[in-house]
Amino acid sequence: MNPINLTIWNEFVHEREAGPVGDWIRQSYPDGIHALLAGKLAAKDLVICTATLDEPGQGLPDNVLETTDVLVWWGHCAHDRVDDELVERIRLRVLAGMGLVVLHSGHYSKIFRRLMGTSCRLRWREVGEKERLWVVDPSHPVAAGVPETFTLPHTEMYGEPFELPDDGKIVFQSWYEGGNVVRSGVAFRRGAGKVFYFAPGHETYPIYHDANILKVIGNAVRWAKGAMLPPRVTPQPEPPETIRTENPLKNVNTKELHKKS
Amino acid sequence: MNPINLTIWNEFVHEREAGPVGDWIRQSYPDGIHALLAGKLAAKDLVICTATLDEPGQGLPDNVLETTDVLVWWGHCAHDRVDDELVERIRLRVLAGMGLVVLHSGHYSKIFRRLMGTSCRLRWREVGEKERLWVVDPSHPVAAGVPETFTLPHTEMYGEPFELPDDGKIVFQSWYEGGNVVRSGVAFRRGAGKVFYFAPGHETYPIYHDANILKVIGNAVRWAKGAMLPPRVTPQPEPPETIRTENPLKNVNTKELHKKS
Amino acid sequence: MNPINLTIWNEFVHEREAGPVGDWIRQSYPDGIHALLAGKLAAKDLVICTATLDEPGQGLPDNVLETTDVLVWWGHCAHDRVDDELVERIRLRVLAGMGLVVLHSGHYSKIFRRLMGTSCRLRWREVGEKERLWVVDPSHPVAAGVPETFTLPHTEMYGEPFELPDDGKIVFQSWYEGGNVVRSGVAFRRGAGKVFYFAPGHETYPIYHDANILKVIGNAVRWAKGAMLPPRVTPQPEPPETIRTENPLKNVNTKELHKKS
Amino acid sequence: MNPINLTIWNEFVHEREAGPVGDWIRQSYPDGIHALLAGKLAAKDLVICTATLDEPGQGLPDNVLETTDVLVWWGHCAHDRVDDELVERIRLRVLAGMGLVVLHSGHYSKIFRRLMGTSCRLRWREVGEKERLWVVDPSHPVAAGVPETFTLPHTEMYGEPFELPDDGKIVFQSWYEGGNVVRSGVAFRRGAGKVFYFAPGHETYPIYHDANILKVIGNAVRWAKGAMLPPRVTPQPEPPETIRTENPLKNVNTKELHKKS
Repeated sequence: MNPINLTIWNEFVHEREAGPVGDWIRQSYPDGIHALLAGKLAAKDLVICTATLDEPGQGLPDNVLETTDVLVWWGHCAHDRVDDELVERIRLRVLAGMGLVVLHSGHYSKIFRRLMGTSCRLRWREVGEKERLWVVDPSHPVAAGVPETFTLPHTEMYGEPFELPDDGKIVFQSWYEGGNVVRSGVAFRRGAGKVFYFAPGHETYPIYHDANILKVIGNAVRWAKGAMLPPRVTPQPEPPETIRTENPLKNVNTKELHKKS
Repeated sequence: MNPINLTIWNEFVHEREAGPVGDWIRQSYPDGIHALLAGKLAAKDLVICTATLDEPGQGLPDNVLETTDVLVWWGHCAHDRVDDELVERIRLRVLAGMGLVVLHSGHYSKIFRRLMGTSCRLRWREVGEKERLWVVDPSHPVAAGVPETFTLPHTEMYGEPFELPDDGKIVFQSWYEGGNVVRSGVAFRRGAGKVFYFAPGHETYPIYHDANILKVIGNAVRWAKGAMLPPRVTPQPEPPETIRTENPLKNVNTKELHKKS
Repeated sequence: MNPINLTIWNEFVHEREAGPVGDWIRQSYPDGIHALLAGKLAAKDLVICTATLDEPGQGLPDNVLETTDVLVWWGHCAHDRVDDELVERIRLRVLAGMGLVVLHSGHYSKIFRRLMGTSCRLRWREVGEKERLWVVDPSHPVAAGVPETFTLPHTEMYGEPFELPDDGKIVFQSWYEGGNVVRSGVAFRRGAGKVFYFAPGHETYPIYHDANILKVIGNAVRWAKGAMLPPRVTPQPEPPETIRTENPLKNVNTKELHKKS
Repeated sequence: MNPINLTIWNEFVHEREAGPVGDWIRQSYPDGIHALLAGKLAAKDLVICTATLDEPGQGLPDNVLETTDVLVWWGHCAHDRVDDELVERIRLRVLAGMGLVVLHSGHYSKIFRRLMGTSCRLRWREVGEKERLWVVDPSHPVAAGVPETFTLPHTEMYGEPFELPDDGKIVFQSWYEGGNVVRSGVAFRRGAGKVFYFAPGHETYPIYHDANILKVIGNAVRWAKGAMLPPRVTPQPEPPETIRTENPLKNVNTKELHKKS
């Protein structure tokens, strides 16, 4: 089995902020969330690279994206800075088969909203309350080896109503001390690509140091790895079965109408 | 019951083309597909207006869109001319509750692709072959009063694989003389809005004169009518339940991080 | 619009128990849960009758079931006493278009499990803790007029993993004081029939006196009302299109093989 | 990787019939469909055994079923002879993680209908017409290596409306010469188990000799293999979070109510 080419993308803004919030964040993520995840997820079956917003090509030039099997995405305050053209390239690669694991505030990234079609809004609150996750589908590969329930001592609350399409397979739900609930782990297919959204992971809490959270993300990466489909051309002028009906337009040149993709 | 404000949008390009193809199309749609549909769908419970691409605001200025309950969309060769800003306004209104009925080549319109997230590509062929539709879900309101199977003598073929998300409720499937099949009537929810895609309707055949096709479109309009949801604000700083966990960040000013919608 | 024939079925066992638990339950439901619900749901558009396990035909002889548009089901300790033959009659009527609203411990009734196919098991605990419900889909008719969140002061906990099929449309989720979460309001289609499961409603708490709970059940009844489909025969020996392929079996009598429904 | 324990079950009735139909069938399946499939599917990663209705325990005594990873099911005229108790044992094993591949007329088997909840009826016709299959989801593992479209020269027609639940992932659709269409390859989850239904395979045509059909069945077997979940007990009397609400029933003995599974 070939190893999985995993690219971990991070906008990498909060971890470089000046001031007390930045200092606080750097206690958990001194080199950025991407670097922490790359280290924690390291395994023989993964070839991991990281990418950030300020790198050339916003970290995902063609040669990187086209060799990525699974892309992990973390963004928050810089969603708007991601180029629409890059978003479209990522979307097309997902539709062709690349896996995508969207973390935490990535629910509101351009790429996730673009793939979902819905608003992807949710309730939220940032007071460091306790979160308790539940496995809703223990047979799903993303939940393999994860306890039925586990807690995070401090987290940002993400709550329902979470405006997602109906075809998400719910793998996790979360309970919050403050009274909210949310579908916190949801799996989608988009074209040939698998997409997993996982809610935990606010930058101001050391959530990506948690063993269960890392287990889920590692599982999601392996689950999301798929086979890339070859490009296809959609017109099929020659019918596979014999047509006996006479075309009423046979003497009219309709060539100029044939411009669809 | 209040009547439904129905707006029928048509790019209205093919019907004005010069030359033999235009002449041919005008035999079926002398005043445009929108005008034909407006006349055929006329009923007491519908207040119908039409809109076309070349009108001010591309036919859908705010005052029109904001009073539309259900929007019917027909486009083909001018998808690219529809402003992205209009597409986004339509999308937001669908998510808030407006119904959307997308016809035929509208599968590749910006608004449909934007709501679906997938490529929405399909096989196609234009040789005037016979199409036979089947009701897959006879209990669906869009199929009410429609025979289990019926034919169109000449049609453009639209075939699988049709790259849609998995949450479509299939109401119709089509059989083509040339050997293809397709999910030809599919219902979606996107936010609070209902979306129905219906494949038949190529401009060069008089398909919108067919009684069964008109029945389906009329049903779809009434099914797609929903209640508009009021706008909502998503942050919820005050928890509904008492939080006893102490916020580790309580002495750190995180206000600048709170910029999500 | 014709009124809806609503039948409220209750096993009616707990409310007649001797001893202190029975006494306690009768404080909330002196004449049974069915009688309380019938009184609370009374409205001009509903023709309500009640039915209980110990009545002739277990409360649902043919003449009752065949005139019921929507059936509400409450059962708990007597699931096993419901005749399999009755369960099958109910199931067939649901598939033909009757609505079914399954309450609380009805998640484990024969009829609900039979329609779902899965085990329908869930975690549970009975310590009178607080439950908080959340509307997950505010555009769903069953949530109309219901606040985004509301509480029940004392409830039995029903928790994930809740073993349901994937095609449930989630309308409500619940948060429990003890740390659990559950999909507490879920809508299904089975054949032509609509099925709504709603978790709150333990017999030892006066939950069916709560205005929000009653609003949800009333909404569910109206949503579940559908059109009954006529019976259909499935063999179709005459093809709608001409077949040119010669049947290799044309000289072999295969009549005895034709015994499928 | 451990090999997959595959059990191929066949009612094995038609292949032993006297008379010209039986003679005809035996030309394709001299030792039964199960034996033919066992030979054709033989591969290093599969440990294959066969089972038939007339064997002890109807071919699936506990020691066989409990060591089966994936069960292939072919039945037609003897559905009613399968014991309800066996059906329930199979169902529970599927819910716990066993894969199930249901072939052709197995759509109307007790086990498939029991897992689906719906009627599973479909249109049908037996005149030896041509069938053309289409891959609807080329990224699905069951479609791997299968051409986008391929034909069967003679087949029994299975047509829409096919009364299935909505959560089926459509992998194949079929076109029939006589004008019908059907969802001919559909994937489901039921509990921890994967279920694949595949329509082709009438006993009077040599369909299981076709390389594409065998490819699909082999793919389905490997896709359906899952991990078995351990049994679980669902009551959870000890809450994971602290409950402060006082139980109004604390002085009432409710033990007799606690009898749910």
